[in-house]
Amino acid sequence: MSTPETPTTIRLAVIAGDGIGPEVVAEAEKVLDAATAGRGIRFDKTRFSLGAARYLETGETLTDEDLEAIRGHDAILLGAVGGVPGDPRLKDANIERGLLLKLRFELDHYVNLRPSKLYPGAPGPLAEPGAIDFVVVREGTEGPYVGNGGSIRRGTPHEVANETSVNTAFGIERVVRYAFDLAERRRNKLTLVHKTNVLVHAGGMWQRIVDAVAAEHPGVAVDYLHVDAATIFLVTNPDRFDVIVTDNLFGDILTDLAGAVTGGIGLAASGNINPDGAFPSMFEPVHGSAPDIAGQGIADPTAAILSVALLLDHLGLRDEAASVTRAAEDDIAARDGSSRSTAQIGDAVAARLQA
Amino acid sequence: MSTPETPTTIRLAVIAGDGIGPEVVAEAEKVLDAATAGRGIRFDKTRFSLGAARYLETGETLTDEDLEAIRGHDAILLGAVGGVPGDPRLKDANIERGLLLKLRFELDHYVNLRPSKLYPGAPGPLAEPGAIDFVVVREGTEGPYVGNGGSIRRGTPHEVANETSVNTAFGIERVVRYAFDLAERRRNKLTLVHKTNVLVHAGGMWQRIVDAVAAEHPGVAVDYLHVDAATIFLVTNPDRFDVIVTDNLFGDILTDLAGAVTGGIGLAASGNINPDGAFPSMFEPVHGSAPDIAGQGIADPTAAILSVALLLDHLGLRDEAASVTRAAEDDIAARDGSSRSTAQIGDAVAARLQA
Ligand SMILES: CC(C)[C@H](C(=O)O)[C@@H](O)C(=O)O
Ligand SMILES: CC(C)[C@H](C(=O)O)[C@@H](O)C(=O)O
Repeated sequence: MSTPETPTTIRLAVIAGDGIGPEVVAEAEKVLDAATAGRGIRFDKTRFSLGAARYLETGETLTDEDLEAIRGHDAILLGAVGGVPGDPRLKDANIERGLLLKLRFELDHYVNLRPSKLYPGAPGPLAEPGAIDFVVVREGTEGPYVGNGGSIRRGTPHEVANETSVNTAFGIERVVRYAFDLAERRRNKLTLVHKTNVLVHAGGMWQRIVDAVAAEHPGVAVDYLHVDAATIFLVTNPDRFDVIVTDNLFGDILTDLAGAVTGGIGLAASGNINPDGAFPSMFEPVHGSAPDIAGQGIADPTAAILSVALLLDHLGLRDEAASVTRAAEDDIAARDGSSRSTAQIGDAVAARLQA
Repeated sequence: MSTPETPTTIRLAVIAGDGIGPEVVAEAEKVLDAATAGRGIRFDKTRFSLGAARYLETGETLTDEDLEAIRGHDAILLGAVGGVPGDPRLKDANIERGLLLKLRFELDHYVNLRPSKLYPGAPGPLAEPGAIDFVVVREGTEGPYVGNGGSIRRGTPHEVANETSVNTAFGIERVVRYAFDLAERRRNKLTLVHKTNVLVHAGGMWQRIVDAVAAEHPGVAVDYLHVDAATIFLVTNPDRFDVIVTDNLFGDILTDLAGAVTGGIGLAASGNINPDGAFPSMFEPVHGSAPDIAGQGIADPTAAILSVALLLDHLGLRDEAASVTRAAEDDIAARDGSSRSTAQIGDAVAARLQA
């Protein structure tokens, strides 16, 4: 164990989920075991059957009992949740809001951490990508995601639907502080992304808080981009970014785009983090359940494996985290274009850890 | 004149604006003149001094008199408005909300039309772009742009700032109908982009209205993408799109990204259209005032020139519009990498029209 505070037994909640979720989680667990074997760390795992399959079986999305039980863990590993798009039986379900977002909100995952790196050997869509290596710190508990919307005269020609983005100084300051701390451990550069010229109230508050926290971090170079301009730079000049801090919705958009420019969301890992430690943090690949390729054993488990690295890091197991990242990177670098199964990739990464 | 309804005299409001605005507008006018010379069309132009420069001089952004005078025109040609970012004298100005968005809202520009095409010869950032040729139909008068926000306890640790996205069936149906009509004149494919899994009320209404209008257009293939996924496809598979219909904010983001993948927003044109003809429509390059390169005569006027093509098309001058597009495309195709001034590009396009 790398730090004394690390518990010997780690209570891990595993939510494999739907579609390719269980397939990639199996490989992530394989790698987790390989990375921690013989190091005095025991994982006490509880498996939660949650997602579209569970909903179709029981009508339940996330019960209070599930949530309570999950709360009692040190961390959560999640594969992917969500059924087949357009499945009429899921019409009233909204697994995303009722399960995924509910977990993020109830467990106060105010940092949604999404590293983006163009690994040597990973084929990306850009002709001249440069050296891409940045982290998006996406706020996870506020903004347009709060579910503060409604409609009147639904289904009539006079329907009006509102959605309110709710933003607090408390919520912004804590995630901004996290982002500055992260920038100081990286290349000392922070970019705020928002749309301050249109969303003047929320954007103005973000800008003022970033300015205030920046004054305490004189070593960090700070700049600002409107979200539309940020998408341009992500494809023309992605090497300009180090740490991006942004709101929940802009972070959602930018990280999918970032995943695409760094070789696909098959490689993009994420952590839904409660830095205070009051609640378990949750680690998941950015990709979804991909029902179209589920059950074939062809999904790339790398995003789930890299999420395990974020999980280990969060638990203070920094050496183990670094080994997993290195093993996954080496695996990517060694790719020769021949196709491997989900399990073959997991085996290969695990083997590198045992070597 | 290509259609009988076209007026012989066209009252054109010209808002050259700030930064490179006047430079690119000069070339756009040159091309407009060349395209219509000897065709019995007279432009009766009124020049409006609006933008950051006017604000700094007079403290005015857009007076009621200006707005009233602009209303009396058949169309508006706009360069770009906005001062130097961070200019302390503009701190309280918000030229974007007070001028650009005010014009779009007051003149009911509910269709923000943004074609994206990878012209032969235009260098883009993608390694394998495919044949990119789509149009984003961005709603222009609703959504998160309505300015329905506010904050309490401003500047304190207890500040809360809300921004409300307002969406109406009336507003969505009219822009969706426009998009379907456009798809029928193109390749019969329409993609709705939203975030229905999170913004369930606004997104649900968009989806229901698209479904209803789709039933009247059985020849149009309709699909749906979440905005995050749409950004992925814009870099991995942009040739999958024909017509995209989306809300004001998502359209803002997607069109900057689309501009980037098709060789830069130096080429991206746009129309802020009131299809009912109750108010003059406004045509402008997607790019901003770019104060960093202003006054050097190096800005590419192509986006402004292509905006003139949209303007001519909107006025029913279809042949003239097509000639301008063709001349601009030919100019792009003939580029050999040597640098030309703003005026040289304008001259070259105008010369092609005279030939
Ligand atoms: C599934 C969806 C609710 C989710 C989000 O929007 O946050 C996903 O896109 C993500 O980025 O994790
Ligand atoms: C300047 C800004 C208000 C504007 C917008 O957000 O619509 C611009 O980005 C655009 O796309 O025309």
